Amino acid sequence: MRRKGLASMAVEAVESRTSVRVTDPSVASFGPAVALSCRECGERFPLGPSFVCVGCFGPLEVAYELPAGDPEALRRRIEAGPANIWRYAPLLPVPADVADRPNLNPGFTKLVKADNLARELGVTGGLYVKDDSGNPTHSFKDRVVAIAVEAARAFGFTTLSCSSTGNLAGAVGAAAARAGLRSCVFIPHDLEAGKVVMAAVYGGDLVGIEGTYDDVNRFCSELIGDPLGEGWGFVNVNLRPYYGEGSKTLAYEICEQLGWRLPDQIVVPVASGSQLTKIDKGLKELIALGLVEDRPYRIFGAQAEGCAPVSRAFKDGHEVVRPVKPDTIAKSLAIGNPADGPYVLDIARRTGGAVEDVDDERIVEAIRLLARTEGIFAETAGGVTVGVTRKLLEDGRLDPSLTTVVLNTGDGLKTLDAVAAGPTATIPPSLDAFRAAGL
Amino acid sequence: MRRKGLASMAVEAVESRTSVRVTDPSVASFGPAVALSCRECGERFPLGPSFVCVGCFGPLEVAYELPAGDPEALRRRIEAGPANIWRYAPLLPVPADVADRPNLNPGFTKLVKADNLARELGVTGGLYVKDDSGNPTHSFKDRVVAIAVEAARAFGFTTLSCSSTGNLAGAVGAAAARAGLRSCVFIPHDLEAGKVVMAAVYGGDLVGIEGTYDDVNRFCSELIGDPLGEGWGFVNVNLRPYYGEGSKTLAYEICEQLGWRLPDQIVVPVASGSQLTKIDKGLKELIALGLVEDRPYRIFGAQAEGCAPVSRAFKDGHEVVRPVKPDTIAKSLAIGNPADGPYVLDIARRTGGAVEDVDDERIVEAIRLLARTEGIFAETAGGVTVGVTRKLLEDGRLDPSLTTVVLNTGDGLKTLDAVAAGPTATIPPSLDAFRAAGL
Repeated sequence: MRRKGLASMAVEAVESRTSVRVTDPSVASFGPAVALSCRECGERFPLGPSFVCVGCFGPLEVAYELPAGDPEALRRRIEAGPANIWRYAPLLPVPADVADRPNLNPGFTKLVKADNLARELGVTGGLYVKDDSGNPTHSFKDRVVAIAVEAARAFGFTTLSCSSTGNLAGAVGAAAARAGLRSCVFIPHDLEAGKVVMAAVYGGDLVGIEGTYDDVNRFCSELIGDPLGEGWGFVNVNLRPYYGEGSKTLAYEICEQLGWRLPDQIVVPVASGSQLTKIDKGLKELIALGLVEDRPYRIFGAQAEGCAPVSRAFKDGHEVVRPVKPDTIAKSLAIGNPADGPYVLDIARRTGGAVEDVDDERIVEAIRLLARTEGIFAETAGGVTVGVTRKLLEDGRLDPSLTTVVLNTGDGLKTLDAVAAGPTATIPPSLDAFRAAGL
Repeated sequence: MRRKGLASMAVEAVESRTSVRVTDPSVASFGPAVALSCRECGERFPLGPSFVCVGCFGPLEVAYELPAGDPEALRRRIEAGPANIWRYAPLLPVPADVADRPNLNPGFTKLVKADNLARELGVTGGLYVKDDSGNPTHSFKDRVVAIAVEAARAFGFTTLSCSSTGNLAGAVGAAAARAGLRSCVFIPHDLEAGKVVMAAVYGGDLVGIEGTYDDVNRFCSELIGDPLGEGWGFVNVNLRPYYGEGSKTLAYEICEQLGWRLPDQIVVPVASGSQLTKIDKGLKELIALGLVEDRPYRIFGAQAEGCAPVSRAFKDGHEVVRPVKPDTIAKSLAIGNPADGPYVLDIARRTGGAVEDVDDERIVEAIRLLARTEGIFAETAGGVTVGVTRKLLEDGRLDPSLTTVVLNTGDGLKTLDAVAAGPTATIPPSLDAFRAAGL
């Protein structure tokens, strides 16, 4: 039941997967990763460009043999690494020399201690914003794409591809350019002009598909199974197990930036749900490795009311997520049928968190609140997490006395239309006029 | 003669400056800074919110007593500092505890080894892009505003202000919000909607002035001299000496990121010219402190053909810069009467560099070139520096066998209109149609 989402998208592609020739990757290409394992039945498969279990159609994820030994030595090794996600290379499916390869090197973005916001919201235990707008193309997508690039190299893929309506298109275009790969990105033909520029400027092929985003996705699934798609790495389809691991670095960075401490509470946006599940995975790994103390943490999922299938299921006590038709300004979260929804429900329940949603008006209010208090201009997804944080504090489900981290995963410059902000006054250039304006 | 630019703008304000009451700052507020000194006559003044010499109307700049002693110890101290400009606090006019204050903490942006671009341009000695789009509001302005915020605090100013047509408005609004200062930013009333949102979203006052950018500037000068402007810090007027020092951090970071080595050649955009002069100042300081080897470096200025007064003067062998009326897509560099133009000429000539310009078509080509080769989407000012770099390599004035650093000071997301980029193809969602497209 719960594996329907991803599987239905991918069945055709899997059935013809044997037709895709790929370079046999050396094990060293994937560092500590040793296999792909099915999230549902646990079966293991060799590391390859696969994404669903041939036995049960469950999604595949990367399994590791993580470095055993002295946590202090590992901590020092990480701290001596570069100021980007490659400092965590020992915990990622990438080769040891990854930092020397041409890649956009995202990550190690600011964890902002948001004291002004904390005062407004009444948080006393320490409130932090993990601000991923500092990434190369200004969204967390750079993290996941960076790992997908390395997997594409390992499999000998020469074209990097994806379907996208925004952040991902730019992230793939930019990463492929830097890595010396060809890119071919598929978008709905009626995308806003600004987003088209961002997707096209890196010089790869950009194809407008006459249809909806769902049509674009279906087309991509067909392409993977066709000889036309030979040598193509679709970051969020046949490279998805590797791609998803990039989100673990958010968990690593937050803990390291808190002084190798787990946050008590963390508020994460939910689109497909992948990011939230990987943050949980990352936190559990740090505990297992002894890099942080083993104590409870709570993970909260945040959705927009206009696309809240996981929040709805959480409130209704369901284990199954019923698809919805998205209608919200938070377009980067507008996935009506989230593949990892059921896992999000599990994690929120297991950790004592919740999944909640806010309407578009509260999203915009929250964008303005974050900007006014901390000078951070978030995209709509950041409005969702801040808005949900406020709501959960108001009704007591977030404890204001605990250390709380809120994710901002994108940049307000990309969703300018969502915020109607204008001058306080418009005056002629005279002191009298300024005096009369009463500012 | 050469001091005309800044002085003419500021005379009225200076004459009435005694009417402005400010807190007497403690010396500790400014760290190693000990005085303001006139760039023309060398006269010294106490550290205060002053910006022109009352004796000769020359511009004032910050004078230091920099830390003497073991360079190795200073280098270690810097390297142990935070991953932002405050790691250089011992060399800036800021208090020692600056990193603990609420500030946007810009800087320590990526120095990207641009091997793909180097291959295209035929550079063999190492080509680097210093990419300041990674700053909090995605331009180098965050560096200068961060220092101005600390000066504003030291002088007891409660309102942070500026005139702006773009990057600076957002940087001031964001920095003031985070610092807990009021902001009031003045813009021409007919600014593009996107820029207005970016200036307004941080919740400070935003005032549209019915007039040109020159009218806005004149109005601000009047306001500084009026009781209405009491307690106001205009980052680029009465806080300008402090503000300007923020650009030194570009020089510090480049050298540290090169492994405490001077670049041989550096290409810097020229608007007012301040940034180029401060980069030179920063490099000289590092040499004086023994942090880098004392050897020659060449500084090149880059302008847009549609606003090239300094490039024109350089080519004509003049010491004086004749104002022009700007007409270029590189709006962040469109200062027709650059205050520091004569100093730029001095530095380019003294170091064996040059000042050159490129037309709008080559600016756009260069934006695309940088995006296609390195995955960096620069604003038009980045197109100017990359375009000028290419031109100087073509005519042999840049030596391709030397280590070369090119500055990208802003973000392509803010100048989307300059780049007309679109889909390679638009097709129905079918493999046949994709095959027919021949991609």
